[in-house]
Amino acid sequence: MDEPVQPGWFTRLVSRRAVLATGTAGLAVPVATTLGPVVPRHAASAQAGVVKRITLYAEALPDNLYGYGLAPGQATVPGPILEIYEGDTLEITLVNNTDRRMSIHPHGVDYGVESDGSPLNASFNNPGETRTYTWRSREMTATAGRRLMPGNAGYWHYHDHAMGTDHGSLGIARGLYGALIVRRRGDILPDKQFTVVFNEMTINNRIAPHTPMFEANLGQRVEWIAIGHGNQFHTFHLHAHRWADNRTGMLEGPADPSQVVDNKDLNPGSSFGFQVLAGEGVGPGAWMYHCHVQSHSETGMSGIFLVRNGDGTMPPGAQEAVDRFHGHDHGAAAAQAPPVHAPAEGDGQHQHSPSR
Amino acid sequence: MDEPVQPGWFTRLVSRRAVLATGTAGLAVPVATTLGPVVPRHAASAQAGVVKRITLYAEALPDNLYGYGLAPGQATVPGPILEIYEGDTLEITLVNNTDRRMSIHPHGVDYGVESDGSPLNASFNNPGETRTYTWRSREMTATAGRRLMPGNAGYWHYHDHAMGTDHGSLGIARGLYGALIVRRRGDILPDKQFTVVFNEMTINNRIAPHTPMFEANLGQRVEWIAIGHGNQFHTFHLHAHRWADNRTGMLEGPADPSQVVDNKDLNPGSSFGFQVLAGEGVGPGAWMYHCHVQSHSETGMSGIFLVRNGDGTMPPGAQEAVDRFHGHDHGAAAAQAPPVHAPAEGDGQHQHSPSR
Amino acid sequence: MDEPVQPGWFTRLVSRRAVLATGTAGLAVPVATTLGPVVPRHAASAQAGVVKRITLYAEALPDNLYGYGLAPGQATVPGPILEIYEGDTLEITLVNNTDRRMSIHPHGVDYGVESDGSPLNASFNNPGETRTYTWRSREMTATAGRRLMPGNAGYWHYHDHAMGTDHGSLGIARGLYGALIVRRRGDILPDKQFTVVFNEMTINNRIAPHTPMFEANLGQRVEWIAIGHGNQFHTFHLHAHRWADNRTGMLEGPADPSQVVDNKDLNPGSSFGFQVLAGEGVGPGAWMYHCHVQSHSETGMSGIFLVRNGDGTMPPGAQEAVDRFHGHDHGAAAAQAPPVHAPAEGDGQHQHSPSR
Repeated sequence: MDEPVQPGWFTRLVSRRAVLATGTAGLAVPVATTLGPVVPRHAASAQAGVVKRITLYAEALPDNLYGYGLAPGQATVPGPILEIYEGDTLEITLVNNTDRRMSIHPHGVDYGVESDGSPLNASFNNPGETRTYTWRSREMTATAGRRLMPGNAGYWHYHDHAMGTDHGSLGIARGLYGALIVRRRGDILPDKQFTVVFNEMTINNRIAPHTPMFEANLGQRVEWIAIGHGNQFHTFHLHAHRWADNRTGMLEGPADPSQVVDNKDLNPGSSFGFQVLAGEGVGPGAWMYHCHVQSHSETGMSGIFLVRNGDGTMPPGAQEAVDRFHGHDHGAAAAQAPPVHAPAEGDGQHQHSPSR
Repeated sequence: MDEPVQPGWFTRLVSRRAVLATGTAGLAVPVATTLGPVVPRHAASAQAGVVKRITLYAEALPDNLYGYGLAPGQATVPGPILEIYEGDTLEITLVNNTDRRMSIHPHGVDYGVESDGSPLNASFNNPGETRTYTWRSREMTATAGRRLMPGNAGYWHYHDHAMGTDHGSLGIARGLYGALIVRRRGDILPDKQFTVVFNEMTINNRIAPHTPMFEANLGQRVEWIAIGHGNQFHTFHLHAHRWADNRTGMLEGPADPSQVVDNKDLNPGSSFGFQVLAGEGVGPGAWMYHCHVQSHSETGMSGIFLVRNGDGTMPPGAQEAVDRFHGHDHGAAAAQAPPVHAPAEGDGQHQHSPSR
Repeated sequence: MDEPVQPGWFTRLVSRRAVLATGTAGLAVPVATTLGPVVPRHAASAQAGVVKRITLYAEALPDNLYGYGLAPGQATVPGPILEIYEGDTLEITLVNNTDRRMSIHPHGVDYGVESDGSPLNASFNNPGETRTYTWRSREMTATAGRRLMPGNAGYWHYHDHAMGTDHGSLGIARGLYGALIVRRRGDILPDKQFTVVFNEMTINNRIAPHTPMFEANLGQRVEWIAIGHGNQFHTFHLHAHRWADNRTGMLEGPADPSQVVDNKDLNPGSSFGFQVLAGEGVGPGAWMYHCHVQSHSETGMSGIFLVRNGDGTMPPGAQEAVDRFHGHDHGAAAAQAPPVHAPAEGDGQHQHSPSR
């Protein structure tokens, strides 16, 4: 038995732009028997999973962009953050309101060939067509030698795999992508979430000074999901904050050997995520995030992470920095490469539901 | 005392294209005293190692390629998978049957300057010349603070370092490369092994649709060894399967902090490996593997991982997908860049010996 | 109370080109209360930190380079290795003796917006100007679920963020960069340290055969700090040595899952470090280190790690290899791209103080 999408639940989802697939009291339904034909669930990890059904609408947007949205007229670049727990299943009814062939292809989760999203497997939506894609997930399972085959938990992403070419290069170039999070039970939930996609020479298909300004109050737990797309190599750098280069960005214990980084490769098809406490140890202010490839930051791949005071007021100097950024012309390159998308309040960021 | 290569043993090696350096009953010989002048073996890790001797033949192949092979006339691109356990020594007699200077240079193992494979150290084979290279390995050793200096276990590779230039750029470009695995005792052995080399804009010096089609039956334990070469950056992506980004691709325990990935940077000189259970949780079918740099997948850096049913029969839709792939013209790029090597049954993949 | 810089201490620093911020008996001063307004120090990790004050001088150098130095006339490319323990604070008085705007921006440590080093935050030195930058550090702190927010320990780096552009691209291109190490208490200290910066198509702004020749005696514990800068992607490869791909390069215990590597991506803004025992298991000799992108090694991104005998004498064949390297013309490329800096004894390498 699946969970029907309730209008109220849906509206709330749209307003905060995340799909939280579990934890809504009374809606969780065990689906252990539907999770795939090959691998029996490992006893110790047999958690109840739920099936969530959502509808995504693919639409054309201004400036030659396309986007995914949770309701008609609500498409954004990047698309909504989709979020489940290991064990859950996500059924996505994709409505193609564009005039081109397109699909949705996920990283990190389990799906059959019919949900592959690739023309190779005839898994896509023709113009005007509606098609359902099923993504499943499971926890780690024991194998020989006390090792475990990994589960699906991770900071993943989804994207088109059919528009323009059999690899979806046109759909990706024009904005058909978004973040997908599969959490382990017990993972720490954030206060806010930011999706940062280094796509070709843009951030979320925009260039400075029109790149997203991500905002948080001092001390808030902020989750970054970073995704790479396109044809260029990139390195994501965040000023004054750092994270462990592992699954969560935090150390799993004092002996966790992970390197701590503040700059990480972000190449096409890859993704990672981490949580920081905004301004921890450094104070509030306008902090840069940018691609550290010099010619990329110079031509527009930079933005601001605005850490406000704990009460939401602006710290000294921050407005001046923001104004400076917007007056920033990035030299001749900016004149040659106008912004591909007008700035919009809230794109790529949203409040995370604390109700779990 | 070394282990002589037995004709039967050798023939078997050639047929499955792997060199298994240990575990053949009655042939193992301790060589602890020959493992190098600098570091005494750590008591707790003093395993018996063996010395294996193989002969590799470097040969010219059609389409301007060169390859390494375990017998005359058997050279392939990539070369055979070489595989030992930590503690073992591999003595390679390299016969240069090409008309150019060339060598063999390994990653990850121990070797003296005379086995460096570099012209810098006058370590190479002139045309027609035979030369022996010795690669050693050892387990991790204790150092201060309860830390350990790493041993040699890993998914490594070998390649020419002398053809054309002092860095072997010509030899690498034309196919002189292969996988090298050093296992820790207790590592899980696979049923099948695939070598995938992203070399310049090719996979194993081929482009789609002539890239290798790797095949396994549902549930088989398949080991992928991914190697990068050339001048381009790449990202390796496999559909519907994932692995831990650590030494084995599996989690070493429930607290292993490693990120789980299905897309990973694969840049020149780097390598990694992992094991998946074919079709686990997703079912059989024709699954894509490809470089996720969009322009690279578009111009031929993609292939098929064909997961058959458990009994080896074709699952529904798989043949159609394979046919679609072979009819796939990859646009104008394919016309400009014809396949550099005719497809051959079995290249880059083989059965792993379960006899250990 | 801060620690005044003593002339003797300073002179010693200059001679070995490292700033050791802790452990000098009698100078350590607890500064726990000054480490930042946001996060109270975690009880279990409340170590006494010290405040160290140094002065850095930015200067023009021959060949259109700029450098940081610990005394006037002492600037080098790369700049001096700066080194502290978690908990320490480093106050840097930067004297800009160039005729251009410039700054110092660190990775990995904590700093307020006024020490960001970015024009965005009006944090830079005009020509002739002196300005103080404060970098703080702290240990890991507990958070929910037995996880820990990471501390600042790591192999980091610093660089200009203001010369030429708001991202410091000119300053970085011309040599304004260096290594920054934050150690955890208990970390193993090396005998020698080498800084290797892959900056655009150079190593430490030089090309072969003028790249640094790093030297050690057999068995010495050598620390490599590798830093990427510029606009190109790179992979750092070291012959005959390897390291764990984690924070220290060593395994934290027998179950540490880290991959062991001898080739690693080194892209703009990233850094990593590791320690090897020179020639361990392989013997002395002239070992190559180079970018493994073939066209990069071919055009000059390679150098020699000379491992001498334990008594400092030259091993057989090493001088011949060094001579061969210096006669190495790297083909036409070398003629087109003359060395950007004359070779200098000791650049990028120095003895580490054992006195801690």
